[in-house]
Amino acid sequence: MKKSARFKQILLSDSTEYLMEAHSGLSARIVEDAGFTAIWGSGLSISASMGVRDANEASWTQILEILEFMSDATSIPILVDADTGYGNFNNVRRLVKKLEQRNIAAVCIEDKIFPKTNSLINGASQPLADIDEFSGKIKAAKDVQLDDDFCVVARVEALIAGHGMGEALRRAEAYRQAGADAILIHSKLSEPDEVLTFMQEWNDRCPVVLVPTTYFNTPAQVFEEAGASVIIWANHTLRASIRAMQETVGMIYRQRSVIEVQERIVSLKDVFTLQKLEELQKAEGKYLPRKNNTH
Amino acid sequence: MKKSARFKQILLSDSTEYLMEAHSGLSARIVEDAGFTAIWGSGLSISASMGVRDANEASWTQILEILEFMSDATSIPILVDADTGYGNFNNVRRLVKKLEQRNIAAVCIEDKIFPKTNSLINGASQPLADIDEFSGKIKAAKDVQLDDDFCVVARVEALIAGHGMGEALRRAEAYRQAGADAILIHSKLSEPDEVLTFMQEWNDRCPVVLVPTTYFNTPAQVFEEAGASVIIWANHTLRASIRAMQETVGMIYRQRSVIEVQERIVSLKDVFTLQKLEELQKAEGKYLPRKNNTH
Amino acid sequence: MKKSARFKQILLSDSTEYLMEAHSGLSARIVEDAGFTAIWGSGLSISASMGVRDANEASWTQILEILEFMSDATSIPILVDADTGYGNFNNVRRLVKKLEQRNIAAVCIEDKIFPKTNSLINGASQPLADIDEFSGKIKAAKDVQLDDDFCVVARVEALIAGHGMGEALRRAEAYRQAGADAILIHSKLSEPDEVLTFMQEWNDRCPVVLVPTTYFNTPAQVFEEAGASVIIWANHTLRASIRAMQETVGMIYRQRSVIEVQERIVSLKDVFTLQKLEELQKAEGKYLPRKNNTH
Amino acid sequence: MKKSARFKQILLSDSTEYLMEAHSGLSARIVEDAGFTAIWGSGLSISASMGVRDANEASWTQILEILEFMSDATSIPILVDADTGYGNFNNVRRLVKKLEQRNIAAVCIEDKIFPKTNSLINGASQPLADIDEFSGKIKAAKDVQLDDDFCVVARVEALIAGHGMGEALRRAEAYRQAGADAILIHSKLSEPDEVLTFMQEWNDRCPVVLVPTTYFNTPAQVFEEAGASVIIWANHTLRASIRAMQETVGMIYRQRSVIEVQERIVSLKDVFTLQKLEELQKAEGKYLPRKNNTH
Repeated sequence: MKKSARFKQILLSDSTEYLMEAHSGLSARIVEDAGFTAIWGSGLSISASMGVRDANEASWTQILEILEFMSDATSIPILVDADTGYGNFNNVRRLVKKLEQRNIAAVCIEDKIFPKTNSLINGASQPLADIDEFSGKIKAAKDVQLDDDFCVVARVEALIAGHGMGEALRRAEAYRQAGADAILIHSKLSEPDEVLTFMQEWNDRCPVVLVPTTYFNTPAQVFEEAGASVIIWANHTLRASIRAMQETVGMIYRQRSVIEVQERIVSLKDVFTLQKLEELQKAEGKYLPRKNNTH
Repeated sequence: MKKSARFKQILLSDSTEYLMEAHSGLSARIVEDAGFTAIWGSGLSISASMGVRDANEASWTQILEILEFMSDATSIPILVDADTGYGNFNNVRRLVKKLEQRNIAAVCIEDKIFPKTNSLINGASQPLADIDEFSGKIKAAKDVQLDDDFCVVARVEALIAGHGMGEALRRAEAYRQAGADAILIHSKLSEPDEVLTFMQEWNDRCPVVLVPTTYFNTPAQVFEEAGASVIIWANHTLRASIRAMQETVGMIYRQRSVIEVQERIVSLKDVFTLQKLEELQKAEGKYLPRKNNTH
Repeated sequence: MKKSARFKQILLSDSTEYLMEAHSGLSARIVEDAGFTAIWGSGLSISASMGVRDANEASWTQILEILEFMSDATSIPILVDADTGYGNFNNVRRLVKKLEQRNIAAVCIEDKIFPKTNSLINGASQPLADIDEFSGKIKAAKDVQLDDDFCVVARVEALIAGHGMGEALRRAEAYRQAGADAILIHSKLSEPDEVLTFMQEWNDRCPVVLVPTTYFNTPAQVFEEAGASVIIWANHTLRASIRAMQETVGMIYRQRSVIEVQERIVSLKDVFTLQKLEELQKAEGKYLPRKNNTH
Repeated sequence: MKKSARFKQILLSDSTEYLMEAHSGLSARIVEDAGFTAIWGSGLSISASMGVRDANEASWTQILEILEFMSDATSIPILVDADTGYGNFNNVRRLVKKLEQRNIAAVCIEDKIFPKTNSLINGASQPLADIDEFSGKIKAAKDVQLDDDFCVVARVEALIAGHGMGEALRRAEAYRQAGADAILIHSKLSEPDEVLTFMQEWNDRCPVVLVPTTYFNTPAQVFEEAGASVIIWANHTLRASIRAMQETVGMIYRQRSVIEVQERIVSLKDVFTLQKLEELQKAEGKYLPRKNNTH
C-alpha cells in the first residue's frame, strides 16, 4: 500500500492511532522499528536538531532534505509539520509537489504568519493568518496534489493565540470547507479541557488530531473516548536523545574515558544494523567484481 | 582566538586533549556545553544520523551542510572526518576552501579509496590509496588553504587494512613530508598494542591522534604517557542518543503514554535554551516594532 | 504518457530522434518550446554554467538539484549525463532512485573513473573503468529502478581513450548483456568514420546513441541511414548563450548604455512568459483573498 | 583588497560606476572578463534561469548556492538582490552571516512583503512593508555583519507601488537613519523623471543606486550628472542569453544540423577556458603521480 493511502486510512479509521516524532533518517527508522505506524516530522525537533530555532531559520529546502532522508529510511507514512507552509499559497503548492515526489504522505500547515513562532513559548506573540488567506492555502494544496490520497491537515492556532473556542471552531469549519482532510487543534494548557470541548462541539465533522505535549498527564483513553483520530507524541524522541547525549557526554568529559558509558550506548554493530549495512554487503557480492571486493 | 588557531594549539600543546564526536548542530552544542574544547565531526555518525551508510551515500555537499550547522552552533573548533576527501586532490582542494569559508578548523582525510568503507566493519575489504596519490592530496590541501592555521590530519589505514607496522610508518612519514599537520593512526584491535608500538617508533615526528573505539578499555593515562596529542571519542554521542531513543520510543509505544518517560527526557524549556531562544526574544524587542511584536 | 515511457519510445522507434542540450530550468524550457521531444542534461554544460569544471567539482546532489529544476520546468523527457555515476554501483543505485523521484526519464553513465575527465580535452588521460565493475553498475541501476520504463544508457569511452574498435565492441556487448537499454558510442574525431564502423559491426544489437560534437560537419542523413536511434546536440545551447552574453555584456560595458543592445535581447515580457507568470497571476485570483491581492 | 572594501569604494567614490547582472557562475565570470568592476546578483535573473518565478519559489538557500558559485567564480564584488530579505529581521541576520561567509560584498533588500512580487509586472499589487519593520531589518543587518565593509543597500519601492515622492523620500530617510549604506530608488516609468526628482530632493544624503530597466533610453550621462553612485544593468545578460538560445536552438531543430550555427556559438575550447581548465591541468601535473596522470 502507498504511504499516502496508509496515512489516509489512519486518519479515517475508527480507532485512535499514534504518531511519534522523528527529526532525522535515523530517528525515523527507530520510530518505525518500535512499531509505530506513522511518523510526525516535527518542525521544532528538526530545527532543534540542526541547532537553529523553530522560527524558519532553516530554509524550507533544508527541511525538505531532512524529510527526504526520513522518507528514504522508512516504509511508514510521514505527516510533515510544515509550519505556515513557508510563505503564501504558491509556496504551499510548490511544497506539496516536492513532498509528493519524495513519497511523503501528508502535510500539516498552521494558520499563523511566516516566519513562525513556536506555539509553546511562554508569552510569545502568536499573530494568526487571515482566515480567507489560510483557506486559500488549503485549497491550493488540495488542488495541486497529484496523488488523491495525499492528505492536508489544517492546524488551528486560535486557542494558542488566545482567541477562544468560537474562533477555533469558526476557523476549523472554514478549513474543512476549503478541503482539509483533518483538523489539528492545538492547545498549550496543562489540562485537556479546551481540546475536549472543541471535540465535543466539532462533533466529528472531520478527523481531529491532538498533540498532548503540555497536557501529557491525561491518559490516552480520554482522547480515544473523545473520538480523536490521531494522537501525536510531538517531540519526545528528540528530548530523549538530548538528555542521553548531555549525560553521556558529560560523563565522558569528566572521566576522560568511555569505559563506564558502554552500558549507556548501543554497540557499533547496532549502528551498522540501523544503517542496513548487511544489504550493502550483499549488494557488493552481487555487483562488485571479486577483485575489487576483496583486494 | 580563531577556531583554527585554537585547534592548532590543541595539536601542538604538550598535553593530551580530547575531542568528542558530534553529528548535528544540536549535538555539537551539547559537546561544547559539556566542556570539551574541540569537536570530531564524525563521518560514521553523520551518515548514521541521516539514515544512510558510511559509504559516501550522502554527497559531500550534504555533509558540508551538516558541518555548517555544527560550526554555526558552536564556538569551539571542529576537526572534520572527511573520509578519503570525496575524490582526488582536486576534490580535496575544493573541500578545504568550503570548510574554511564555514569556519571549520581542520580536516582529516584517510588513505583509502572513494567510495569509502567504514574501518571497523568486520572482514570488509579496505583497499588503500596509492601512497603518492594520497601524498598529493595532502600537498594540495596545504597549498590551497588560505588560513595558515587550518590543519590537515592524515589518517593512516595501513593497520586497519592489515599491511603491518612498516607500511604504517612508511605512509605516516610520506604524509608528514607532504605537509600533514598530524597523523591519525587507526586500529581496530581491542588492545592498544599496535598504536603504542607505532607511537614509539614514530617518536613524535609530528603530533599523533588516536581513536580508541575498539580499544576503549585502555585508561587514557596510557595514551597520555605515550605522548598522544589528541584522543577522539569518535561516535559515543550518537550511540548514546540511539540507545535513549530506542528505549524511550519503545516505552511510549507500549504504554500509549508519555507520562512515565518524563524523567527520561529534557523539558521543552531545555530544548528552547539549547536553541538559544532567549537571544531571539531580545532581538525581537530590539528590531521588531511593538505592533508586530505583541499583536 | 509518462516521461520515461516517452523516452523509451524514442529509443526504440525506427526513426532517428534528436536530443538538445540544456543546463538549467530556463534552457530546458527553451529546448521544449523549440519543438524538441527530449533533453540532454549535459554534465559539461551544467558544470560550465555553474562556473566549475567538468571534473566532478560540483557534488552529485548539486547536479541533481539543477536537474530537478529542469524536470519541473518541462514536460518532455530528460536523459541525464551522469558522468561515471559519481562513484561505484552503490552510488549509481542511489542516483537512480533520486532521478526517478524527480521524474527524470533516463540516465547515461560512462565507463571511466571518478572523478571524471571531459572526453574532448586534447591529450588528457582517459583511464577506463574495469569492464566487470562497470557492468555491475549497469546491473545495479537496472535492478534498482522502480519504473520499468526508466532507461540506462551505457556510454563507451574506448574510442576516446584510444583502445580501438575491438575494445569498444567488447565493452558495448558486455554492457548490453548487463542490461543497458542503449549504447552511446563516443568519438572525438572530426570525421564520423569510427562511429559508423562501430554501428556497422554492432548491427543494431540494441539502440545506438551518437554525439556529433567534433564530427558535426556530417549531415544528419548519414546517421539516420546508419540506423542511429538518437543524435545528441550536446552543448550548443550553452555555447550559444556564452557567445551572446560575451558580446552583449561587452557592448554594454563599452557603451555605458543598453540602448543599442535592445535588439539583441528579449523583452522583460518574454522573460515573464518563460517563467509562466500568467499561471501565477490566475492562481492569485483564485487562492488569494482580494484584500491581499490588490492592496 | 577585500571584495567588500572594493564595493564600499564603488559606493563612496565620486564617479558613477556600473554593475552588470549575472545569474550563474558562468555569467558572473563573463561579466568580470568584460571589464565590469562589480556584479548585480539579480533575483529576477536567477529565478528565471532556474525556470521558476520571481516570487520566492526557490528557497533562500537555493539562491545562496547560486551566489556561492558566482562568488567562487569571480574576483570582483557582488551586490546581491535579496528581495525582501526572505522573511523578517531574523532571516535577514542569518542571510547576512551566510553572505559574508561566501565572500559576497553587499546585499540589497526591498521594502515589500514576503513572498515578493516582481516590481515590473504590469498592474501587480505591490504591498509595502511597514516602515518601522523594514528599518528594523536594516538595523539588524548592520548589527550582525562581522566585516565593517559589508554594505546594505535599502531599495525603496514607494514609487513602484504608487505611493508618491513624499513617501519615497520619507522611507529613504528612515532607512538611511537605520544604517543603510545606500538607497536604491526604483521606478517603472519609461522616463527617468521621478528618479531624477528623487535625487534632487535627496541631495546626496547617502549614495543612490539606479536601475534603468524601463527608462533605459536615457543616456548614462544624465545619471552621472545627477550624481548617481551606481547604475545597475539589471537583467540584460540573461535576456541576451535567452534570445541566443531561442534562436540557435530553433535553427538546430529546423535544420537537424549544427553546421550553420557554428558561427553563432563559441568553441568548446572557449568553454574550457571559461572553466579555467588550464589551472586544473597544471595542478594535475603537480599533485597527481605520473602513473595516474598519463595512464
